[in-house]
Amino acid sequence: MPTIPVSPAALVLTAALSTLGAEAPAQVDDVPTYAPTVDRILREAVARGRAYDMLTDLCTTAPHRLAGSPGAAAAVEWARQTFEEVGLENVRLEPVIVPHWERGDVCRVTLAAPAGLAGEELTAIALGSSVATPEFGLTAGVIEVQSFEELSERRAEAAGKIVFFNRPMDPESIDTFKAYGGAVDQRVRGASEAAKVGAVAALVRSMTTRHDDVPHTGNMRYSPGVPQIPTAALSTVAAERLSDMIEADLPIELHFVQDPQWFDDEPSANVIGEIVGSTYPDEILVVGGHLDGWDVGQGAHDDGAGTCEAIEAARLLVHLGLRPKRTIRVVAFMNEENGLAGGRAYRADHADEMPNHVFALESDSGGFRPRGFTTTARPEAKAILDEIAKLLEQADCGLMLEGAGGADIGPMALDGVPLAGLHPDSSRYFDVHHSENDTLATVNDREVNLAAGAMASLLYVLADLDERLPRR
Amino acid sequence: MPTIPVSPAALVLTAALSTLGAEAPAQVDDVPTYAPTVDRILREAVARGRAYDMLTDLCTTAPHRLAGSPGAAAAVEWARQTFEEVGLENVRLEPVIVPHWERGDVCRVTLAAPAGLAGEELTAIALGSSVATPEFGLTAGVIEVQSFEELSERRAEAAGKIVFFNRPMDPESIDTFKAYGGAVDQRVRGASEAAKVGAVAALVRSMTTRHDDVPHTGNMRYSPGVPQIPTAALSTVAAERLSDMIEADLPIELHFVQDPQWFDDEPSANVIGEIVGSTYPDEILVVGGHLDGWDVGQGAHDDGAGTCEAIEAARLLVHLGLRPKRTIRVVAFMNEENGLAGGRAYRADHADEMPNHVFALESDSGGFRPRGFTTTARPEAKAILDEIAKLLEQADCGLMLEGAGGADIGPMALDGVPLAGLHPDSSRYFDVHHSENDTLATVNDREVNLAAGAMASLLYVLADLDERLPRR
Repeated sequence: MPTIPVSPAALVLTAALSTLGAEAPAQVDDVPTYAPTVDRILREAVARGRAYDMLTDLCTTAPHRLAGSPGAAAAVEWARQTFEEVGLENVRLEPVIVPHWERGDVCRVTLAAPAGLAGEELTAIALGSSVATPEFGLTAGVIEVQSFEELSERRAEAAGKIVFFNRPMDPESIDTFKAYGGAVDQRVRGASEAAKVGAVAALVRSMTTRHDDVPHTGNMRYSPGVPQIPTAALSTVAAERLSDMIEADLPIELHFVQDPQWFDDEPSANVIGEIVGSTYPDEILVVGGHLDGWDVGQGAHDDGAGTCEAIEAARLLVHLGLRPKRTIRVVAFMNEENGLAGGRAYRADHADEMPNHVFALESDSGGFRPRGFTTTARPEAKAILDEIAKLLEQADCGLMLEGAGGADIGPMALDGVPLAGLHPDSSRYFDVHHSENDTLATVNDREVNLAAGAMASLLYVLADLDERLPRR
Repeated sequence: MPTIPVSPAALVLTAALSTLGAEAPAQVDDVPTYAPTVDRILREAVARGRAYDMLTDLCTTAPHRLAGSPGAAAAVEWARQTFEEVGLENVRLEPVIVPHWERGDVCRVTLAAPAGLAGEELTAIALGSSVATPEFGLTAGVIEVQSFEELSERRAEAAGKIVFFNRPMDPESIDTFKAYGGAVDQRVRGASEAAKVGAVAALVRSMTTRHDDVPHTGNMRYSPGVPQIPTAALSTVAAERLSDMIEADLPIELHFVQDPQWFDDEPSANVIGEIVGSTYPDEILVVGGHLDGWDVGQGAHDDGAGTCEAIEAARLLVHLGLRPKRTIRVVAFMNEENGLAGGRAYRADHADEMPNHVFALESDSGGFRPRGFTTTARPEAKAILDEIAKLLEQADCGLMLEGAGGADIGPMALDGVPLAGLHPDSSRYFDVHHSENDTLATVNDREVNLAAGAMASLLYVLADLDERLPRR
């Protein structure tokens, strides 16, 4: 643009536009000085990062780590040792009391009628927190609905039946998280909505965009004061088979048996370690993921990857000798999947420190190719985050979108802590989420290592700027 | 920004900046009117796209389809039938004479000395176009080098030896294509450079960022007037094993035997089909990929995906009833991997039409998550492409970077045709490229279908604008 004459007035305008007005925080100008450091972090991450190696170790040590299980205990001990090994300071466990639900041995949905099809199985998996069926199962007719509204309109038909919620995740949505958000009410609330109209059980189409025979679990919640009926997810293949039979007006009855069970709460822990700040050690930036995972697959993406990316982000800084002015605190949270006890406990146990919590970052959207971050930060703080994101554009990882942080760090929003979440590409996530498909084989080493590098970069700059990030 | 007073001078500046000066082509203003159409194409692509289904079919029908092989012939017939099935017009084969090289049955690299390690195998695969070793192999000492410069300096050591080129793809490069570009000279020219200094064979570290025991093939070329010595690629695990032994000063001798063979040229074909333009049928936009692939894995990413994305891009337009003003010509090129006969033949056979070739688009960078395009277009044309790319930002697919189009369409650059290439994320590509890892299992349905949607969108707008794209 050197040939375009620029008037002084235009220059003023350009400056004003670039900072969204005169109140732009001073830190914005300091961010570009971190470009060489960010470059160094990213190169180290992709070339010699260890997030993938850590994840391999975690998935082998404790593939199933639902809160309250022996696997979860193994994961806690794995995290404690790993935090020590990578050189974090003040490594400790912070007690968390967690719910303890077990899937049991059986979840079978079969056709009981018509006679010609009796015994045919529809692949299913119990939803987390569901109660069992009677010991020898239940047999009932079935009604398919797409929504709670349709169920309410057809309530007379539903009494005594199994309600089958079959609204798919919107296949036209390129953002699969948006599609998930548009369908997951069926999984979370379907059983209670069905119970309200007298149903005996609820089956839900798996939350996935994939057409296969692998069912996807995930948590559900019973509404207070409503009978607790058993509920399970059908694979998409099974859901479409059942839907076709219903559409063909076959006189269908299903037999449904499953034996999950609730036990007493168990002691568990969040695992914590730090890089203590050189200048403002009491000012804290949290980075984390959740250590627990469902009892299927290996929880590689959800959220082994996020946990290992958080640890690796800190390890990269330790390894490169980058101690920032403020403290970076790594938290491996417990019980995100079925209770959020870890996230709640962290906030409660650190209530005194909350005013000094500058920022919190979580990775819990899968271990796929990172594209940037989502954040709850208000404009003044977001202007700084935007400037840091520009440093990550070289890695095609420079998005800083408005959006949520993460479930575990979510409670800190009540204290005005600005939150952010890693934003990986979402194309493949719901292929694997909460299913036997969520294995290490679907994770790419360069992708998780780059994610750790992007997280380390964002954290380091925010922890090292002379002035702290403005609060919400 | 409503609170910021804007002077008329500033508005003029802003307008000037936004179009890079007054010469912005008229088409730029028309592009935004295509937003609803692009939205419709993208939604159809991700929800009901058939690129993945086509690819499944191709990988099953003809997993190995190197030029001149029965698999390549099967792929040509598959493409002809598929073009017909999706509703293309003027479907035809255009003859191409292709080279015919076969890998043979054996490629074995084993230690001959020291005695204690004799017989240990280093996993290897013959490089495409390589000659065979003597029937019972050759045995020689080995010299490891990182570059042709180092080889030249140590030429006295290389005579009578096997030269081992072991410079890795730069692991710090986030763009793996850049890392590939920085290492692939060893594969293409290594044998002739080694022969020039009297070596008897050349082994090359596989072109991959992955550490595993899967070797990666790919084409090499002999320099005229230099003895043709046999050459193969070692897996990265084997390359590092060999390098460690050399560093430990072990008195290493290798035994190397392989039996690839050249045969007479064979007749084959490019496969062509069209959507004939409604208003300017003689003005042509080419979209393609290459139908041939290496004789390992299934060629799922290279370039089954690209070929199917090109076909699917056209099918989407046919299916949606979107006939543009200009003709879209789909070309499944033959022999990209070891000769480029198809690309050259296409240009030669269509020499008369070249002035009417408006644009050419190829997908040959893998079937991973599309991020946008690279293009050779000059500023006036690129301003239009940039405007179209903005319509794809909703799909996180809005990059329009300066860069190459693709090998098969490359010859048309000599006629001034603006070229573009699909630009997918590169994180995973060299894990699979030219190896047994290049299978359908590593392809994601949503990713290839979205890529087809992005390609269909770009093509449709360019083919339908009132004025054609400015030439180079």
